[in-house]
Amino acid sequence: MADFRFEIIAKDMNCRARAGVIKTRHGEIETPYLVPVATSASVRGMDCDALERIGVQCVLANTYHLHFQPGDKLIGKFGGLHKFMSWRKPIFTDSGGFQAFSLGLGALHGTKKIGFIPQNKEVKEEKKEEELLAKVSDKGVEFRSAYDGAISFLTPKDSMEIQSNLGADIIMAFDECTSQRSKKEYVKKSVERTHRWAIESLKYHDKKQALYGIIQGGFFKDLREESTKFIMKQGFDGIAIGGALGETKKDMKDVLSWIMGILQDDARPRHMLGIGWVDDLFECVENGLDTFDCVHMTRLARHGGLYVASGEGNMKNKFKIEINKAKYSEDKKPIDSTCDCPTCKKYSRAYLHHLYKAKEISYYTLATTHNVYFMLSLAKKIRGAIIKGNFKELKKEWIGV
Amino acid sequence: MADFRFEIIAKDMNCRARAGVIKTRHGEIETPYLVPVATSASVRGMDCDALERIGVQCVLANTYHLHFQPGDKLIGKFGGLHKFMSWRKPIFTDSGGFQAFSLGLGALHGTKKIGFIPQNKEVKEEKKEEELLAKVSDKGVEFRSAYDGAISFLTPKDSMEIQSNLGADIIMAFDECTSQRSKKEYVKKSVERTHRWAIESLKYHDKKQALYGIIQGGFFKDLREESTKFIMKQGFDGIAIGGALGETKKDMKDVLSWIMGILQDDARPRHMLGIGWVDDLFECVENGLDTFDCVHMTRLARHGGLYVASGEGNMKNKFKIEINKAKYSEDKKPIDSTCDCPTCKKYSRAYLHHLYKAKEISYYTLATTHNVYFMLSLAKKIRGAIIKGNFKELKKEWIGV
Repeated sequence: MADFRFEIIAKDMNCRARAGVIKTRHGEIETPYLVPVATSASVRGMDCDALERIGVQCVLANTYHLHFQPGDKLIGKFGGLHKFMSWRKPIFTDSGGFQAFSLGLGALHGTKKIGFIPQNKEVKEEKKEEELLAKVSDKGVEFRSAYDGAISFLTPKDSMEIQSNLGADIIMAFDECTSQRSKKEYVKKSVERTHRWAIESLKYHDKKQALYGIIQGGFFKDLREESTKFIMKQGFDGIAIGGALGETKKDMKDVLSWIMGILQDDARPRHMLGIGWVDDLFECVENGLDTFDCVHMTRLARHGGLYVASGEGNMKNKFKIEINKAKYSEDKKPIDSTCDCPTCKKYSRAYLHHLYKAKEISYYTLATTHNVYFMLSLAKKIRGAIIKGNFKELKKEWIGV
Repeated sequence: MADFRFEIIAKDMNCRARAGVIKTRHGEIETPYLVPVATSASVRGMDCDALERIGVQCVLANTYHLHFQPGDKLIGKFGGLHKFMSWRKPIFTDSGGFQAFSLGLGALHGTKKIGFIPQNKEVKEEKKEEELLAKVSDKGVEFRSAYDGAISFLTPKDSMEIQSNLGADIIMAFDECTSQRSKKEYVKKSVERTHRWAIESLKYHDKKQALYGIIQGGFFKDLREESTKFIMKQGFDGIAIGGALGETKKDMKDVLSWIMGILQDDARPRHMLGIGWVDDLFECVENGLDTFDCVHMTRLARHGGLYVASGEGNMKNKFKIEINKAKYSEDKKPIDSTCDCPTCKKYSRAYLHHLYKAKEISYYTLATTHNVYFMLSLAKKIRGAIIKGNFKELKKEWIGV
């Protein structure tokens, strides 16, 4: 049995928001929590010491990437990811299902993203079927390595073995994501496949690891409900929500309401895959989600987007300033005057503007440190508000509704 | 008057090596010291907190780069580099003279380097005269900005004004470097020009800053001696050695012996510009140099060269391992088992090999941290050996002679 427990310590009276603690053999995660993504066993822009200094409680690493480079078997020889990357706290791994999407169907449909997708904006160059780096069949996914072209066929069993080698505390069932542009007929078949894979994942997974089942079904109410009911009744340690969530933020709320209408009394921890904007965090917490992972906060930092709190930050500017703008070149203020992160305690916007322009490596570390600290502080504030019973007020203060 | 003092606390009986302390208004530098280079007001790969954590005592920033980006006037508005980059300890700035070389004569002669240059190896693509980004005349240097093409004419007076705006503790006189391929006739004229500029630098420099004069003269004994005598008799706070040092390590030793034969009893601190390999450090210390600056240790780290101590490290492998090599992919050892740096205390070669291959930003910070810590520890060991009277033994242990 996995050394894994989830305790709910407070629930909001007016919505599904809840505060809790996930307990693993590598320590605790206080929820709601936004998990920084360490794709290749490293959060882009921060080493593990840097993560520890700002109190990061857990990270999420990627099965697909680590399987190909440096190889999960190699990591297994080290005794798993914790030892390989010298990270003592809890680790999540995804299952590779997302890359089956982003390198397969997503590429075919011209989008690498899932989750909430404004359809008119996100359609990029479409790939042809023969160019795809991932091909899904009932048996599993044939991946062509983006690193060296090597072919690797992953079944649910393989994904579980890889995740066992990686040795994370919390792992994900192997699933298929569908695209926002997938037809209902395809999504229906895909959900059935994901459910068969869920059963196989349960069968083959390393029982020392906590396994989350993933709810799919795209933007189809009946399929989302069917998937929720199916995943819920299996013996998973936690429940994750994956896949396409419609075209607007309103659509995402609808998907969550379909799922949560069924899932609401389930006591297991709930993880939302690939969500991480400020307003998404509030919406998902309001709908009863406990943890989230997203490359957004770290990627945004690398591209010059730095978070600012409610007040200067708002829904219109997405709670960020663009540090490349000339107006910051002489700005002596910290990025965010309410922030206690190591970057804001020491450096000015002008200096960060300069480092960004000069493409200094220190820009990436300082900016990433700020964005991660900022979002984790926000998650902490949200948690505190749930415990105190004023989550709705905090949400209103930040996103206006 | 500059708040600046140099105390020699120990001298070696058998050579010119000496241990000392440079005292500035921003703190002390224990010599011999290898100064990390913060070209654009940041050491590549480390933020100022990271430098402080490993006890770095000072950095050297570049006048040319900061003049063009973000501009010395802007930095002046912040009260100087210390405040702009949030660095409390001593700062050196160079004068822009090196870039007058690397963008001018160096480019014309197909080399961007000065110092010790194996002539057969370093000749790269030669630029034509009209393509040069720096043109030297008696009055000064016309720079075309590598950033945006803007023209800026720098005289010694301008260099002093820029360095005053930057506000470093220790600044350099404006000088002209010559190339290893410069003819004696040119070098002779250039030395005379450098001497006139030295006088002007002394006249115009900010008297709160300690000013070092620079000895030039290429690989010509009489010119080096003439330059040493001239610079020595001016009222500089310290003496620096610049320019071409011949083609072999033996040549470099010759240049140092010509200079030190004259300079040996001078009590001012001596700085060697652009030197930073392990064996160079020993040679230069043995010849009575106190401080050094070089991008080598940080650049090497970024390209996968990681320092290892005497034993595994030797003259043949230049005291480094190349972390990209496949043999390190499963190596559980730290980079250097004798090193106490934050990287060696926590991470394996295998993990660094992986991060390097994955081009993770954390590779650059962890690798740079190691190399800087390693070289500063070596400087500290050298200092300790001079104080204890066993410098020669330490040198023999490391470089065999």
